[in-house]
Amino acid sequence: MMNRNPQLNRKGELQHLLTTEGLPLSILLNILDTAESFVGVTERDVKKIPLLRGKSIFNLFFEASTRTRTTFEIAAKRLSADVLNLNIAVSAQSKGETLLDTVNNLSAMNADMFIVRHSQSGAAHLIASHVQPEIHVINAGDGRHAHPTQALLDMFTIRRYKHDFHNLRVAIIGDILHSRVARSQIHALTTLGVPEVRVIAPKTLLPSKVERLGVHVYHDMRKGLKDVDVLLMLRLQNERMEGASLPSFEEYFKYYGLTQEKLALAQHDAIVMHPGPMNRGVEIDSVVADGKQSVILPQVTFGIAVRMAVMSILAGH
Amino acid sequence: MMNRNPQLNRKGELQHLLTTEGLPLSILLNILDTAESFVGVTERDVKKIPLLRGKSIFNLFFEASTRTRTTFEIAAKRLSADVLNLNIAVSAQSKGETLLDTVNNLSAMNADMFIVRHSQSGAAHLIASHVQPEIHVINAGDGRHAHPTQALLDMFTIRRYKHDFHNLRVAIIGDILHSRVARSQIHALTTLGVPEVRVIAPKTLLPSKVERLGVHVYHDMRKGLKDVDVLLMLRLQNERMEGASLPSFEEYFKYYGLTQEKLALAQHDAIVMHPGPMNRGVEIDSVVADGKQSVILPQVTFGIAVRMAVMSILAGH
Amino acid sequence: MMNRNPQLNRKGELQHLLTTEGLPLSILLNILDTAESFVGVTERDVKKIPLLRGKSIFNLFFEASTRTRTTFEIAAKRLSADVLNLNIAVSAQSKGETLLDTVNNLSAMNADMFIVRHSQSGAAHLIASHVQPEIHVINAGDGRHAHPTQALLDMFTIRRYKHDFHNLRVAIIGDILHSRVARSQIHALTTLGVPEVRVIAPKTLLPSKVERLGVHVYHDMRKGLKDVDVLLMLRLQNERMEGASLPSFEEYFKYYGLTQEKLALAQHDAIVMHPGPMNRGVEIDSVVADGKQSVILPQVTFGIAVRMAVMSILAGH
Repeated sequence: MMNRNPQLNRKGELQHLLTTEGLPLSILLNILDTAESFVGVTERDVKKIPLLRGKSIFNLFFEASTRTRTTFEIAAKRLSADVLNLNIAVSAQSKGETLLDTVNNLSAMNADMFIVRHSQSGAAHLIASHVQPEIHVINAGDGRHAHPTQALLDMFTIRRYKHDFHNLRVAIIGDILHSRVARSQIHALTTLGVPEVRVIAPKTLLPSKVERLGVHVYHDMRKGLKDVDVLLMLRLQNERMEGASLPSFEEYFKYYGLTQEKLALAQHDAIVMHPGPMNRGVEIDSVVADGKQSVILPQVTFGIAVRMAVMSILAGH
Repeated sequence: MMNRNPQLNRKGELQHLLTTEGLPLSILLNILDTAESFVGVTERDVKKIPLLRGKSIFNLFFEASTRTRTTFEIAAKRLSADVLNLNIAVSAQSKGETLLDTVNNLSAMNADMFIVRHSQSGAAHLIASHVQPEIHVINAGDGRHAHPTQALLDMFTIRRYKHDFHNLRVAIIGDILHSRVARSQIHALTTLGVPEVRVIAPKTLLPSKVERLGVHVYHDMRKGLKDVDVLLMLRLQNERMEGASLPSFEEYFKYYGLTQEKLALAQHDAIVMHPGPMNRGVEIDSVVADGKQSVILPQVTFGIAVRMAVMSILAGH
Repeated sequence: MMNRNPQLNRKGELQHLLTTEGLPLSILLNILDTAESFVGVTERDVKKIPLLRGKSIFNLFFEASTRTRTTFEIAAKRLSADVLNLNIAVSAQSKGETLLDTVNNLSAMNADMFIVRHSQSGAAHLIASHVQPEIHVINAGDGRHAHPTQALLDMFTIRRYKHDFHNLRVAIIGDILHSRVARSQIHALTTLGVPEVRVIAPKTLLPSKVERLGVHVYHDMRKGLKDVDVLLMLRLQNERMEGASLPSFEEYFKYYGLTQEKLALAQHDAIVMHPGPMNRGVEIDSVVADGKQSVILPQVTFGIAVRMAVMSILAGH
């Protein structure tokens, strides 16, 4: 018997959202299609629908991230769910309780969904493998491993602007090594049929054997950007850079910062994306970040709709 | 004229829940009976009823406790109340405002209920004696004094599994000295008519003259567990242990940790309870904590229903 | 063309509430009148109306203030809005994101309103000048500059007790120099037609050229209180006092602390107000703070109604 995908239930439906790796195309497309309908809700005067009324959604943040927590909280509230924010770093864990005891405890409060952010890769998987079948887990970022809702909102944004994935050249640029976002993007782009995914980074910011993921590697940004349709910039995780062999931010910007001049090497209608928060003048120039090819703010808007879609799909199973 | 019970209003109804000490049997039973109806609500698809709609409930936590705060928040939200979380340790108090000024201020915002957690014994009583008659106070743990909702959910759990209190032997095991939970349990068990309440602990973890509470003292756990129907384990408050004469956690576990072997000395259908968070391998062995006699997770589930019951009874008066 | 008031939209309606300076009388009165209707709501059994259902209100606190945050949160919840609390000091800003990127990001989540608290004067103006026209900004205190909702609730309280502004003597007493509250009060009192506004403070706690605001300066509190109808006490901002030339709190209390004896110099029916939190025994004696001329707690109650009024007026435009 095959090892079942831990994200799917016995009927093959989405039970948890843990990673874009191995996520079937049909489910990926279902999330994107469902999100389309929620874009309308977020633009209405009363931005609220009763789909998850009476559900208890726990934001379990073992690593602080106000921004990500807020996107999930607002998505849940617009679905009329009750949201409980738990900053676990400073509470029970410090009293010596294990991760699984904490989760058992919250599950016993009749939780419906856990949004999990953790500095350790695999934390969301561990929780998902442990909870009762009526509880759903969404990975909101685990270590260097995955950040699937970010990748999904990126895919949603690409489809909105480029309509079809099958004729695109997409470049992911920057700190691939430390980025859970890049990993999740690569898997999603591949499943959606993007024929050419490039990664552009200095050797020191690339994982070894990254080619095995099916991407083309460029160290020279000018070559890598040639004819590209979509630029996925990454945040330079300076807080994770201790000991990395980066000469300086200025040096980095010179070679890998996205300027208008480098952007001109891509397709004339290429779009520029960034997961935020941006380091202006490090990985991206302000002129580009605020320029007309930038779709960085629409990404944020679509991110709410995508998270509403994931939550409502999970709650339906 | 008799000194009126500060928890009751002039009609003898529950006005505040401060301690299980002196709580009349009829009120105790009313809370347990009301909680029964809320167990059903927490198991429904839409876990929400409009009983406290438009009420403002303030979680006043002068001492951090994410877990306890969450249980009250979720109970209040399932009753459709508006919940305001205030971590007072880091705010007005540090600006030199007195406790009663803080409470006056929040009362003036037309608060309906305060859930109070404070490191000092008597804080909830002080607040209750001070607020206007339309405001209700629930003690969510004050110093070493009381933690009545924990004791009530324990009583609810015992009744669920043992049905009748009048033929039970109940043992409370561990750090009785520092435990507000133990005090609240002893008062509730006595009022409910439990004929034999035992405390099992080393001398250094027992308050002096604990026998006056009507309990039987055991220092030898093997003797104390004999024929017991209910085991109420306590958390070893290691953060409060400075200077206590405990040789080591290993030593403690050897004599007072609950193992399967020690549990076998109790009744064969004895239930094991713990207020959480557990120190596995210190006061309880994992095999027991996760074993079939453990009702530790049902305690958590019933805890939500019991808190909903207390809130709705108070709001009705 | 005149420089348009940044608080008003093209039709002259309130678009943002940033300061009481330059706020037209008609708008000021509209806020006070609207607040009257909300006082009733806060006294009802179900303290909730659906006016802002489906709106997303962000509490953007770049400076911690549990008390102020709570007043806005409770006002928003009683209007049925969804409230998101963001303590920005500890999140994205520390990741090097700019203030405007943070605001852009939250705006892209289809925010309807930002409540902004910031230690720097002008922060709320900067945000207001930057957001899209459908987003409203309320200044909840910026540096030493303004705290308009505090001033408005003070005006509401004065009108409730004194009915008419046109025959009043009002004294503002204490640390005028560091007080955004005092500045906002002076502008509001002047616009509402109060004929005589006094400021009472030692020279070291007065801004230079304060007379230009149209106030009468007193250094001797006994002279300044003579025949006054309203006393607006200020909090001694001891946390901002580094290097100030105050001899001691005892000395300050002797000369500028409000005692019953000094209060007797004012009109016999004068009212005493304070924005909180109070330093009892420093700027105000407990006998006065809790005395029958004190309207300090009604200020808090009216503060909720005034904030509901401001939010509902903004959301209507």
